[in-house]
Amino acid sequence: MGGKQISENVISRLPKYYRYLQELEVKKINRVSSKQISEALNLTASQVRQDLSNFGGFGQQGYGYDVDYLKACIREILGLNTFHNAIIIGGGRIGQALANYKGFASENVYVRAVFDINVSKVAKIDGVDVYDMAELDAYVSNHKVDVAIISVQKEEAKKVAEKVVALGVKAIWNFAPIDLNFGSRAVCENINMSESLMRLIYKAKS
Amino acid sequence: MGGKQISENVISRLPKYYRYLQELEVKKINRVSSKQISEALNLTASQVRQDLSNFGGFGQQGYGYDVDYLKACIREILGLNTFHNAIIIGGGRIGQALANYKGFASENVYVRAVFDINVSKVAKIDGVDVYDMAELDAYVSNHKVDVAIISVQKEEAKKVAEKVVALGVKAIWNFAPIDLNFGSRAVCENINMSESLMRLIYKAKS
Repeated sequence: MGGKQISENVISRLPKYYRYLQELEVKKINRVSSKQISEALNLTASQVRQDLSNFGGFGQQGYGYDVDYLKACIREILGLNTFHNAIIIGGGRIGQALANYKGFASENVYVRAVFDINVSKVAKIDGVDVYDMAELDAYVSNHKVDVAIISVQKEEAKKVAEKVVALGVKAIWNFAPIDLNFGSRAVCENINMSESLMRLIYKAKS
Repeated sequence: MGGKQISENVISRLPKYYRYLQELEVKKINRVSSKQISEALNLTASQVRQDLSNFGGFGQQGYGYDVDYLKACIREILGLNTFHNAIIIGGGRIGQALANYKGFASENVYVRAVFDINVSKVAKIDGVDVYDMAELDAYVSNHKVDVAIISVQKEEAKKVAEKVVALGVKAIWNFAPIDLNFGSRAVCENINMSESLMRLIYKAKS
């Protein structure tokens, strides 16, 4: 990569390519053309070729892409070959659903601990420790935490996220209904369900 | 609106305006300038003025926007003044978290029923009926269902969504890790957590 700047739009499509390639692999399909990819993902073939050329252009004219190789390249580019330790802050229903979700293993992300103000309300989960919120500082200071998942109330989200960023966590995955942004201190993805629902309602009435 | 076409980008920002105006209302702030809105939402002031002018331009030079009036307008535009009945298909942890979430009431969306292949595993929720998946067709045929929330396994998602769309449901809110698209038959919003996590991991390593 050599520090080459990839546009946000291309980045946002890489997981879609990756997921599609996973599906092809399951179906034991070895080669795929830009046309096939484009049709599956509702993109144009030239868009697909352009996106993938950002990473060196693995396609061969007339032969298409080797599925295994392209998938391995995108996996490497996305950073999915590295193990990531995650903690969940907020053990409510969304937090517990995330703690239980096994799908993150394919992204090499493992939830190690859940923090909540009311430990007794958080159901036990295999392989995941449950801690009182008061222990958050000490835990983050003493463990390698790559990703903090924020699933506390909106009012608490910014404060708690700022705290773990100050303690050195570099990636925040936020489920509270507020857009968090840490500039150059940490990266963040906001999953805003309420906004998505509002867009859906708007589109449904239009 | 008179059928005026609003761009996807503007639509995607409307919920952010709405949420910000809600916060101002809570703080009992009556007027707001495009500059203040732009700073709160990381947009430019001219972008804010342009977005809001799509809906008739409620701002007054030098006075800014009346918070209550602007919020009411956006609420109307978004369609949040209308009641919406929702059903959840898939009563796993994400489905149950959504069934329990009270926040949707502010968007006038009410979950009426949860469908699952294993009813006994779905916890009872006040005001929400739990049905066996086999009853889905009959339920949708006999009730007004505005939104179907899909939280089944990826392999089942497309089939079950196609079924309710065929039965007349016009809005699909999809949490399964697959992009659904129904063309002109129904609108859809996909919440793809796995893709969001991959983007986060990528950004964290860049």
